[in-house]
Amino acid sequence: MVLLNKKINLLVFSGEYDKALAALIIANSARELGAEVSMFFAFWGLLLVRNPEVSLPEDKTFYEKMFGMMTPKSIEELPLSKMNFSGFGKEMLKAMMKEEETPDLTAFLKGAIKKGVNFYGCKLSVEVMGFKSEELLPEVKIIDAKEYLKDALECDMQLFI
Amino acid sequence: MVLLNKKINLLVFSGEYDKALAALIIANSARELGAEVSMFFAFWGLLLVRNPEVSLPEDKTFYEKMFGMMTPKSIEELPLSKMNFSGFGKEMLKAMMKEEETPDLTAFLKGAIKKGVNFYGCKLSVEVMGFKSEELLPEVKIIDAKEYLKDALECDMQLFI
Amino acid sequence: MVLLNKKINLLVFSGEYDKALAALIIANSARELGAEVSMFFAFWGLLLVRNPEVSLPEDKTFYEKMFGMMTPKSIEELPLSKMNFSGFGKEMLKAMMKEEETPDLTAFLKGAIKKGVNFYGCKLSVEVMGFKSEELLPEVKIIDAKEYLKDALECDMQLFI
Repeated sequence: MVLLNKKINLLVFSGEYDKALAALIIANSARELGAEVSMFFAFWGLLLVRNPEVSLPEDKTFYEKMFGMMTPKSIEELPLSKMNFSGFGKEMLKAMMKEEETPDLTAFLKGAIKKGVNFYGCKLSVEVMGFKSEELLPEVKIIDAKEYLKDALECDMQLFI
Repeated sequence: MVLLNKKINLLVFSGEYDKALAALIIANSARELGAEVSMFFAFWGLLLVRNPEVSLPEDKTFYEKMFGMMTPKSIEELPLSKMNFSGFGKEMLKAMMKEEETPDLTAFLKGAIKKGVNFYGCKLSVEVMGFKSEELLPEVKIIDAKEYLKDALECDMQLFI
Repeated sequence: MVLLNKKINLLVFSGEYDKALAALIIANSARELGAEVSMFFAFWGLLLVRNPEVSLPEDKTFYEKMFGMMTPKSIEELPLSKMNFSGFGKEMLKAMMKEEETPDLTAFLKGAIKKGVNFYGCKLSVEVMGFKSEELLPEVKIIDAKEYLKDALECDMQLFI
């Protein structure tokens, strides 16, 4: 089963552990079948491609600093979209995933990078949330909504996650 | 960069400030590139196209009246999909948008209308929620799920937001 | 109005009453117009195709048992995605649907089965959540992410719900 010459575009809007898993599993699977994959991270989705090692609060405004502190720096800290129960539900899901020897979110993210998924960050979201480009993973290219649309319209399938 | 002859369909199900922003930014950007855009507002999505100046509680049932009172009349009052913190997170986002001189949701909605985005309201949702057609923006045409599907299937890209 | 030769793929990720309604109304309407429809139930979406009559906790791990107990067995018990208010909002929606003589979720699910919508369950989700295949509706065929992608890419329209 191969999907050569096929292109997939995922707009990742949500910053939740389970939805991030879904998006990254689709992206990894599509690459394994030979399809081209673009992921466009917008709004909360940017939290998936935050560089956990870089934080540059110096030139930020008060709100930007506060936002940077209130949001999870590591993707493993992202909450669930439901049944999170202050983190308990998430830990339960992670334990259940471990029992099935399913890789964690970090492994799927690294897999996507290694397999050549194209990572894009939404320019407007980056600006509004006050991220410096160094605070995102080096693989992330910043593009605007029009460039996203151009890419998405060349794809055979588009999802908003 | 132009997208003439391209058509985009957005099913707006969510009634949240951030998701509404995402939908309307995509719609505006697509129109600026020359693409045709349909937005189909269903369920909570109808709260985006409520006419803030018209409220007709007279012929409504008890539940419909209560629903009308419990839901925001203005799109600027819509909550965030996460980190809302009883409105604090939303006000913070709005302040951050202002710092970047990003237009607010109302401006993007007016822009979409001005640019000729096609607005559709889901017939079943309108009936269940007890809206009169005068309570929605005059630009909204009520259609059913089958008409939505026919339109969406003629498009090059469809998103569920 | 007919949509013969058209194919629609719905990835149902959410386990919420309102989103389930949206997905099933689209699926039923598309079938009535002659289109082929696939629904791929992943993560919380699996709660829509749980067999209410079968529960097999015997061979499950501690977490899987707990998960089975904490999640609704019947689709009519699924919460709303917003304004749920500990179930009050959901009951209000159901009452409003009844006033309009709109069928409930169970009726739309049965309709989809009767009309020949293809039901797929996500293999990884089934394993992580610890479901036995007998605990899902007999119509559900278990497939993996790659099989989902192959099916979705043959479709004219794909949504992530």
